[in-house]
Amino acid sequence: MKQTLNIIKIGGNIIDDVDKLNRFLVLFSQLEGPKLLVHGGGKLATSLAAQMGVEQQLVAGRRITDAATLKIVTMVYAGYINKTIVATLQSLGTNAIGLTGADGNTILAHKRIHPTIDYGFVGDIDTVNTDFILQMLAITNTLVLAPITHDKKGQLLNTNADTIAQELATALIGNFNIQLVYSFEKPGVLMDATDDTTVIPSINTAQYQQLKAEKKIFDGMIPKLDNAFLALQLGVKKVIIGNASRLPELVAGKQGTTLVLE
Amino acid sequence: MKQTLNIIKIGGNIIDDVDKLNRFLVLFSQLEGPKLLVHGGGKLATSLAAQMGVEQQLVAGRRITDAATLKIVTMVYAGYINKTIVATLQSLGTNAIGLTGADGNTILAHKRIHPTIDYGFVGDIDTVNTDFILQMLAITNTLVLAPITHDKKGQLLNTNADTIAQELATALIGNFNIQLVYSFEKPGVLMDATDDTTVIPSINTAQYQQLKAEKKIFDGMIPKLDNAFLALQLGVKKVIIGNASRLPELVAGKQGTTLVLE
Repeated sequence: MKQTLNIIKIGGNIIDDVDKLNRFLVLFSQLEGPKLLVHGGGKLATSLAAQMGVEQQLVAGRRITDAATLKIVTMVYAGYINKTIVATLQSLGTNAIGLTGADGNTILAHKRIHPTIDYGFVGDIDTVNTDFILQMLAITNTLVLAPITHDKKGQLLNTNADTIAQELATALIGNFNIQLVYSFEKPGVLMDATDDTTVIPSINTAQYQQLKAEKKIFDGMIPKLDNAFLALQLGVKKVIIGNASRLPELVAGKQGTTLVLE
Repeated sequence: MKQTLNIIKIGGNIIDDVDKLNRFLVLFSQLEGPKLLVHGGGKLATSLAAQMGVEQQLVAGRRITDAATLKIVTMVYAGYINKTIVATLQSLGTNAIGLTGADGNTILAHKRIHPTIDYGFVGDIDTVNTDFILQMLAITNTLVLAPITHDKKGQLLNTNADTIAQELATALIGNFNIQLVYSFEKPGVLMDATDDTTVIPSINTAQYQQLKAEKKIFDGMIPKLDNAFLALQLGVKKVIIGNASRLPELVAGKQGTTLVLE
């Protein structure tokens, strides 16, 4: 019987709120067994860019990672956020190690290729170095991943944290029973996005397609759920989406929305 | 017979110059055996602070690390510089891992206590986690240390990189033959600070005290040499100071200034 590995993605809104982040980290530190925390970036990078006078370029509604923005997200995600989380976990007795995709060649990516949009220094993932992650988990059971990868040609790349969580999950299927938890400020996938009491406890693939067609699920939730269903198709046992302040209940499958294939 | 471990400190002026840094990293990547790279911060943190409108406080000529400055140095040292170095080393085929003192509890420090000056979030080192470093060196032979430590109470601390190099060296004496190299933009300790041809090939403790008394050695060189002589007293085999562009010759003891106890 394989050991359970919890892979927890923590969303931006929690990271922007020191108290919420600290409460989440207390819960995270109490999870048993090996665990990976993947953090997003929150609004810190945007506010730092504004403070530095670096204009954020948007093309077709997507943020472009130019060289100045890459520098900012590397500073904020890999520096400030990652090390603040690691130091907080250390204070809670959890011996965490913070990593980007460049460290130990953990996550190899390439600059996004797109027919019409140049996303700049955005990375799409090629491979996850499972051997390295297993070696690291033999040293300590807690790794904290920042959403920065590299191309092994010396280029750092800005990479979506939801995708990193999904790629880590699918890469480690052979070694662990994976539970993938997307935690953020909402209690789960909502039937009515304006009403937090309308959490859908369970969604399968067909229901998801229908909710998407009915436009009940929209915006940022779609890439998150696309990633989640892909992870299930690739063999991840369980994907749960819900409120970061209820982490133990999410991991136990007692809160939030559980995604199932069929 | 113990294995040799090279601990290389790379100074700020090299870090500020992309071409010099890249040339140095090529040489560093070619060093055989286990190696630790400790990097300083260069002028990036100062220029970012200016860009952000964060005023640098000086008390008695020493920079104070207030909360805003700590955030900046964490972003710049642990984020931008550390990950740029790691990604460059990966491109050179060297599987590096970047760490701060908080990661794996590598370097535990406390906020500096001083009778008259409040240095802010500056850390003086208590302990180096040698077990963790040995475990990491069993995974890959190259670690890159940023000059940020923590107090295990959740506080990150700004810590002098020269001191980190010396503390790592002395902590690992029992496990390796340590060669400690302080590399920067000068060819070594100079008899005449304005003339690069006056490198002193070797200095012992008595000569150092005399040169200091004669004010031939001054400013930033004094804490560097104080650290170096302390390392020798504590059992480090060899300390070499010299030009980063001559790293192989420094490591071989054929360039720069070699420090000896007597």
